[in-house]
Amino acid sequence: MENRKFTLLTDLYELTMMQGYFKEKAEDIVVFDAFYRKNPSGSGYAIACGLEQVIDYIKNLSFSYDDIDYLRNLNLFDEDFLNYLAGFHFTGDIYAVPEGSVVFPYEPLVKVVAPIMEAQLIETALLNIVNHQSLIATKASRVCYAAKGDGVMEFGLRRAQGPDAGTFGARAAVIGGCIGTSNVLCGQMYDVPLMGTHAHSWIMSFSDEYTAFKTYAEIYPNACTLLVDTYDTLKSGVPNAIRVFDEMRAAGKMPTRYGIRLDSGDLAYLSKKARKMLDAAGYKDAVISASSDLDEYLINSLKNQGAAITSWGVGTNLITSADNPSFGGVYKLAAIKKPEDKEFTAKIKISENPAKVTNPGNKTIFRLYDKETGKIKADLIALADETYDETQDLEIFDPVATWKRSVLAGGSYSIRELLIPVFIKGQCVYQSPDTMTIRDYCAKELATLWDETRRLINPQEVYVDLSQPLYDLKNKLLNEKG
Amino acid sequence: MENRKFTLLTDLYELTMMQGYFKEKAEDIVVFDAFYRKNPSGSGYAIACGLEQVIDYIKNLSFSYDDIDYLRNLNLFDEDFLNYLAGFHFTGDIYAVPEGSVVFPYEPLVKVVAPIMEAQLIETALLNIVNHQSLIATKASRVCYAAKGDGVMEFGLRRAQGPDAGTFGARAAVIGGCIGTSNVLCGQMYDVPLMGTHAHSWIMSFSDEYTAFKTYAEIYPNACTLLVDTYDTLKSGVPNAIRVFDEMRAAGKMPTRYGIRLDSGDLAYLSKKARKMLDAAGYKDAVISASSDLDEYLINSLKNQGAAITSWGVGTNLITSADNPSFGGVYKLAAIKKPEDKEFTAKIKISENPAKVTNPGNKTIFRLYDKETGKIKADLIALADETYDETQDLEIFDPVATWKRSVLAGGSYSIRELLIPVFIKGQCVYQSPDTMTIRDYCAKELATLWDETRRLINPQEVYVDLSQPLYDLKNKLLNEKG
Repeated sequence: MENRKFTLLTDLYELTMMQGYFKEKAEDIVVFDAFYRKNPSGSGYAIACGLEQVIDYIKNLSFSYDDIDYLRNLNLFDEDFLNYLAGFHFTGDIYAVPEGSVVFPYEPLVKVVAPIMEAQLIETALLNIVNHQSLIATKASRVCYAAKGDGVMEFGLRRAQGPDAGTFGARAAVIGGCIGTSNVLCGQMYDVPLMGTHAHSWIMSFSDEYTAFKTYAEIYPNACTLLVDTYDTLKSGVPNAIRVFDEMRAAGKMPTRYGIRLDSGDLAYLSKKARKMLDAAGYKDAVISASSDLDEYLINSLKNQGAAITSWGVGTNLITSADNPSFGGVYKLAAIKKPEDKEFTAKIKISENPAKVTNPGNKTIFRLYDKETGKIKADLIALADETYDETQDLEIFDPVATWKRSVLAGGSYSIRELLIPVFIKGQCVYQSPDTMTIRDYCAKELATLWDETRRLINPQEVYVDLSQPLYDLKNKLLNEKG
Repeated sequence: MENRKFTLLTDLYELTMMQGYFKEKAEDIVVFDAFYRKNPSGSGYAIACGLEQVIDYIKNLSFSYDDIDYLRNLNLFDEDFLNYLAGFHFTGDIYAVPEGSVVFPYEPLVKVVAPIMEAQLIETALLNIVNHQSLIATKASRVCYAAKGDGVMEFGLRRAQGPDAGTFGARAAVIGGCIGTSNVLCGQMYDVPLMGTHAHSWIMSFSDEYTAFKTYAEIYPNACTLLVDTYDTLKSGVPNAIRVFDEMRAAGKMPTRYGIRLDSGDLAYLSKKARKMLDAAGYKDAVISASSDLDEYLINSLKNQGAAITSWGVGTNLITSADNPSFGGVYKLAAIKKPEDKEFTAKIKISENPAKVTNPGNKTIFRLYDKETGKIKADLIALADETYDETQDLEIFDPVATWKRSVLAGGSYSIRELLIPVFIKGQCVYQSPDTMTIRDYCAKELATLWDETRRLINPQEVYVDLSQPLYDLKNKLLNEKG
């Protein structure tokens, strides 16, 4: 990503709108929010992800001569606008929730405060990156939750929606909780653990399964996981694996980590049978891993049936978030400041669908934690200049069912502002942690959720309220427009 | 893609298996088939896509010093193997179905005949590319079929699974039938038409909707599509659009192409109402375009209800193939030739699930067309050295229900071999057509399907039979292993 240029990774209308702004209102400063409306896969939360790639994108944002030439040939743009583009770089401010944070609907994950042309241009790529990685990190956190502490390995590259989906997707999956990936490029780019065994083709390329296993064990004595389902799992695969383990034991060369992988058939039945065969042969520490169209629901169900699997390779359904393959993040204008204005004027988008009415103004997010448990009590979307004092009582209320109110006693809660500065006046002021550090942070973030919110189906929602000033502003604008 | 290197875009196990082959059977030549088992989205066919990017990938396949260093540090690979990798390039043969072809389950879309290490390495990236683009091209062909000749524009970049999914996905969508895309990078890379209007933020950045429309019309008088749903479609948006059209007409500056875009609400109701308002004002040629969570089913349903929409912008559901976000292509060993062998030995993978048993041997695909209609009568998966004579009667049979037989009379049918050489001895012998040429070819390919096979739901399946020699070989191997 570092040396890739995505300046033209944008919708045409961003550029045509830019030219319009260039002619009409080049000096306007705006606030845009990137937020989403619904957690994916019926989850009770989402994981924000992709900020590091957004930072790379913003840093590399410039139009090459070829880009300008290409745009000129579209016959849509004037030379004075093309000249402006030739000198373009980002000069605004960006605030974002740190990668790996748990987030909820309507919260600005990224906030852009910039000249209107700059803020408009970056909409598409910013959404593309954040939508994709947040989707996969969220899905991974669900799959890992279902695995109840077993290791989950990301194995989906061949079914990912293109090379980036495989590589950035694997990064996001590791942040969301996977212990590693099969994707070597992701390992190289983000220094995450690589994992893998062998394929059916390895077995088939030998005269017989036993020879294939034996050869593999000789070459990789310390990471010897044998794929046992090429011909017949229980009649051929597991007995041949045991024969090879017997030979390693007899030679005094028992590996520290070894086992089998199941990739087809009924995984509950086969794993329990295989476990008994391995145990009877004295291989109680042989790991049984499985892969085969797994997702959080199937892992959960297999665990409920006592499947003897403790290592999970998850491919297609994780790397595509198959039951919900898009995140739905949007990017909406929230405020505007003309050159003659001192303050931002809040902007709202109305819709017949109340869920699509935007929250106006220059905002931030305050997260309220219960001091005793460390769990999240509620999030408060507020105007950016509001301040709160943890020692004071705080009354919060549901922004739809406004009679639902509760008072947090002063001293019982702590407050954290989620949005942090990433770019100020075009300069990057934030250093992304490495991927495994983000993964650790994400695990801590997930621990701030009640287990009821992590439930895979029909979870308890976390309260996301509007502050009184933001609520009042929104109603005022709605009544003016309505 | 041309200057991107995806050598490490592979699963770790490809490399560990390669090292195993390097030690044990470096001289073996193998045949691998990339094929899929089930058409996506319940379709009666799929569109093969992605070959141009596979060619770029193979041409660029080499390990840099950094790559070798990274692999060395994994402590899995010996120096002699790393030395081999440092000099690696692809030396084998690749055959493929041309991009834009209609294809069916179990047909080899790509066939690799190469030294075993080379053939194994390329599995993951090859599947990644072909799976992704074939998925999106197939989906696009379904969406365009539902639109019954109306233009369909690809608008999904912000919801695509990463940058490549947006750009290669838009390429595939155009091949599958879209008239263009909003993705400027795709336009630049593949010379496809760009399309777009403006966003809600354009409207909101002005003091009122009328001023926003009027300004846009002044700047883009020749492509004036106004987004009418920011505040209230029928009370505000359409009347303001008509007011601007009136002013353009009065000034004698009526554009050749103009209209409105609906992006929310009930598109059937709103489009019919808006059509009446536009017609009453004398704008019978104003185009009504729509976007908003569209897919082939919703477009079909809106058309059935008489929606007055003739231009469709399709985003999320197309660019992710939301109802079926993975293609499921696999890559299986079909034959092997050791240095001492004169001929390939066919290989088969057994499975308890009959659908997962592979077709053995070095194969090709013969497509049988009805000479009178030009439609496909059946496909025949056959061994590569089989020959057929169109003037002779040809008996074909269902490989599962073998009593289902039919005889094609000599002279009534024509035969075309689908697999064409792409690489021979490591040299590329095929020049990819440009994207719009592939799009034209794809349209012709789709015309070889009966309409019953294009039906969106429960379509008639095209017969894909095995030749008698291939059927006999498969049964022989199954009986030997079983």
